[in-house]
Amino acid sequence: MHALNVPLEARSYPVLIGRGLVGRAEILAPYIDGRQVLVVTDEVVAQLWLKPLRAALSDYEVALHVLPSGEDQKSLETLTTVFDVLAENHFNRDVTVLALGGGVIGDLAGFAAACWQRGVGFIQVPTTLLSQVDAAVGGKTAVNIPAGKNLVGAFHQPNAVIADIATLSTLGRKEYCAGLGEIIKYGLGLDAGLFEWLESNMDAVLDREPEALERVIYWCCALKAAVVAEDERETGRRALLNLGHSFGHAIEAGISYGSWLHGEAVAAGLFMATELAARLGMVDRELVGRVEALLEAAGLPTRPPPIGGARLRSMMSMDKKISSGQLRLVLPEGLGRSRVRADVPDADLDAVLALADGP
Amino acid sequence: MHALNVPLEARSYPVLIGRGLVGRAEILAPYIDGRQVLVVTDEVVAQLWLKPLRAALSDYEVALHVLPSGEDQKSLETLTTVFDVLAENHFNRDVTVLALGGGVIGDLAGFAAACWQRGVGFIQVPTTLLSQVDAAVGGKTAVNIPAGKNLVGAFHQPNAVIADIATLSTLGRKEYCAGLGEIIKYGLGLDAGLFEWLESNMDAVLDREPEALERVIYWCCALKAAVVAEDERETGRRALLNLGHSFGHAIEAGISYGSWLHGEAVAAGLFMATELAARLGMVDRELVGRVEALLEAAGLPTRPPPIGGARLRSMMSMDKKISSGQLRLVLPEGLGRSRVRADVPDADLDAVLALADGP
Repeated sequence: MHALNVPLEARSYPVLIGRGLVGRAEILAPYIDGRQVLVVTDEVVAQLWLKPLRAALSDYEVALHVLPSGEDQKSLETLTTVFDVLAENHFNRDVTVLALGGGVIGDLAGFAAACWQRGVGFIQVPTTLLSQVDAAVGGKTAVNIPAGKNLVGAFHQPNAVIADIATLSTLGRKEYCAGLGEIIKYGLGLDAGLFEWLESNMDAVLDREPEALERVIYWCCALKAAVVAEDERETGRRALLNLGHSFGHAIEAGISYGSWLHGEAVAAGLFMATELAARLGMVDRELVGRVEALLEAAGLPTRPPPIGGARLRSMMSMDKKISSGQLRLVLPEGLGRSRVRADVPDADLDAVLALADGP
Repeated sequence: MHALNVPLEARSYPVLIGRGLVGRAEILAPYIDGRQVLVVTDEVVAQLWLKPLRAALSDYEVALHVLPSGEDQKSLETLTTVFDVLAENHFNRDVTVLALGGGVIGDLAGFAAACWQRGVGFIQVPTTLLSQVDAAVGGKTAVNIPAGKNLVGAFHQPNAVIADIATLSTLGRKEYCAGLGEIIKYGLGLDAGLFEWLESNMDAVLDREPEALERVIYWCCALKAAVVAEDERETGRRALLNLGHSFGHAIEAGISYGSWLHGEAVAAGLFMATELAARLGMVDRELVGRVEALLEAAGLPTRPPPIGGARLRSMMSMDKKISSGQLRLVLPEGLGRSRVRADVPDADLDAVLALADGP
């Protein structure tokens, strides 16, 4: 098992990474605040992993809230049902909410924990590659509203993140590969060594070899922990974690959420961001080829769907209007480094968006 | 104008107390984060105070959300309408939410500010005596759900609290006096000097003399600021601010919320807490008489409504179940001091609850 610390003073917490952790009482116990635990999960994950988790929680008063799978559960309506279950069970300020699932479950359950009685304890047990390397670490929680994704939420750090790599063995190939999109993001934007390691070891990662998995998950979580420790509430450096995401969000919004997985949209976004950076002279054109090759090796898309550059542009403006006054793009500047640009000329942006005009 | 600081390191903020502040642009401007302001208020307050506020905000992009009056607006449903207005106006992370009204508006708008884009700026402009001395200071925000009051919320400190005593001139007598219940609470529980000053100056306070008002509001806010600075998230000393509230909440729940004002229920709760403390030998019986006399001088009830001690008891158990494992009561121990007791014998508690059996 690997362990690392997310250093946030009084709110510091560990990320534990290993095989078979979900079923081990002694791994969970130190992070449960009182005697009451609410487990929030979805139908698919419950089928696979609830039994060992419940066995590990046999000493506690456990309530269960099993939701349908899917992004549409990240809503204020579903949030209300979590509060209802907490109230029905008379769970108080000492309850610990445990999220067993992917990013949707973690974001929803974490936001419920942030709000219940003005904040209770919370444990992340992420079961997808994407949530293990990204969503579960850093304390961002949220639900979607009709006007946009993640518009309503809280920063609420968990008591612990427990990433059990055994849960990755049951992931479908498409969903597994989507997680690799975020992993490549860390390499491209923050750590040339990780990017190069992925170039040499993609086969082992794709084969889900435990050693490679533990290593790469640890690596990504350590990178994220360092950024979050420096800028918990995203007033500065944390924005770099959004490399590829402005394009990715526009893709997701432009084709209606769900037809592409988030990590797939981010993958195409990474290629587009690198292409744009090359046009602006921030990176060598050679890097565009390396990014494209690594994404392809990971089974990920490198081009946006052919929905038209104009439509992508309008989706980016929508995002911009609601989330900040000005279009700010995170772009690579060399391998393993990135920065925010608020001054990208329209012509260069449009040239990259034209990738969505189709072949 | 009086000003004091609530010292919470990076989240420190001022409480400004004076006459005619609502209409002064230079008072508000330092606490507005960007160019966008959402004003949340209710119909009654809007009629009286919106015009000067809007004039003071003429340099900003202002949206307005005017709600019906009443506690039933403190709901997840109404919260959703606040998010809708923020989204419709494309308000981003730089928006400042300004709550113009009493505790209901402050709690609701503050919680909306805590959640919008994971937290935006917030200004409290309390317009009732109760919210000026209590609800607006300290960062507690919340909504009610069917299972109970304030069960869903956040700690979200405002950028500033701006208490304009001019707004108190339009309060009805009953609502004004309800605020005196919380003021007497500060004296009884935390500051003998305040209690004695109230004994000598209740006429001036009841006449709403500006000097007396500024003085007493400043005094209460300073007491609250000191407690909040020491224990922002109510893990210890902040619980003392709940003196009279366990009984008060049981009264409010027992007669269905709204027929007694919160401050009236707290007033009866203060008498009951002092009576119980006298039975337990924590205070002299003389103090029971002084508390009764001061509450009566303030036009407040000293006895619970005749709904039966058994009903009050069941309401306290309900509160207990959902908010903590054990019945914990804040009781005075001498004038100006108080502490939490978790060991009150049933017989003594029942004897005090019997006040609700009627004459």
